[in-house]
Amino acid sequence: MTEALRIVVITAELDVEDPGDSHALEQAERSRSLRIGLLENGFNLVASLPPDVFLTERLAQLQPDLIIVDAESEARDALEHVVMATRDARRPIVMFTNDHDADNARAAVAAGVSAYIVAGLQAERIRPILDVALARFQHEQALRQELADTRDELNALSATLQDRKVIDRAKALLMQRQQLSEDAAYAKLRKTAMDKNLKIVEVAQRILDVAELWS
Amino acid sequence: MTEALRIVVITAELDVEDPGDSHALEQAERSRSLRIGLLENGFNLVASLPPDVFLTERLAQLQPDLIIVDAESEARDALEHVVMATRDARRPIVMFTNDHDADNARAAVAAGVSAYIVAGLQAERIRPILDVALARFQHEQALRQELADTRDELNALSATLQDRKVIDRAKALLMQRQQLSEDAAYAKLRKTAMDKNLKIVEVAQRILDVAELWS
Repeated sequence: MTEALRIVVITAELDVEDPGDSHALEQAERSRSLRIGLLENGFNLVASLPPDVFLTERLAQLQPDLIIVDAESEARDALEHVVMATRDARRPIVMFTNDHDADNARAAVAAGVSAYIVAGLQAERIRPILDVALARFQHEQALRQELADTRDELNALSATLQDRKVIDRAKALLMQRQQLSEDAAYAKLRKTAMDKNLKIVEVAQRILDVAELWS
Repeated sequence: MTEALRIVVITAELDVEDPGDSHALEQAERSRSLRIGLLENGFNLVASLPPDVFLTERLAQLQPDLIIVDAESEARDALEHVVMATRDARRPIVMFTNDHDADNARAAVAAGVSAYIVAGLQAERIRPILDVALARFQHEQALRQELADTRDELNALSATLQDRKVIDRAKALLMQRQQLSEDAAYAKLRKTAMDKNLKIVEVAQRILDVAELWS
């Protein structure tokens, strides 16, 4: 299943301009070893991008199945760009870093990173890491979806309850002032709503508004 | 913060009875290297337990902050015991395994494992792995708590709506049969409830039950 995964790698430095810059060389070597790991495992590496302001647009074009952030130490900055860029369309994010700071790890997890791997970039480990990250992402998305559905249900029920209060108050007013039975009062509300092409709750609200003017 | 963490390790084979059993020796070596990693990182290893039927009771006694499952290949069985044992009091579970099966990884994540680490048991990696697992656990617990709270709210509102329907129907019946205003009908319900030491909805339900008998 994971073979066809389209992967985008976000990495800070793609070119080594100064051959004496050991940090840049090290980062380039990490990046190379990551690419080898992906290719050896049959993944589809569709792009390597720097974490810059164009990221949102490029990710929208590429629609990757998974994003790998390869950030040796500047993890926090790189992640910030990626989180911003995937805010509206969440995607699994795997982070490889050498940053041992537990606070940064916590912040990354809270921001929605599916895997935060410190000092664990070895070619043979990439495949299980991506498998687990995908499972994690789907698991969390399901939980988020359940929360969103429950919230929608709560809002709908809350609106129903509000509507019902308004309708019942209007019905009671009609029953009392026009000596109607409950059914007759409701039928009157309903007919008025149909005649005026309004919702029953709108008619009920107008009755209450007018009653307030008179009282 | 993590220094004082009380950790329980679940591992299948604790004794090597047959010195010629290479599998048992390998497992013992893994277990040793895990213990060294924990000690080197200043964690508090309170017990090593086999995954058996006594686990629930022992975990309840030990109350660990984090559970490590060290299962070379029989990951699925070991995990099942641990998940059962932590069903009522969830705890962060970190799983170290050599099982490369993606389905098993998915099942573990779905069962609530905070970190599922394939072939990644190196002493120097243990600390960041536990940091990330804790952050992950807290993050997911917060999400679960939010879901539970929203569900409680939904149930409470749903009960309110049901009560309101019953009360409104009883009120309407009183208004109609006894020519009462809405306020007078509600006051009557309320007084009866107080006199009989019942909830208003209980009085309303009795009125409706009796009305059905008469109609």
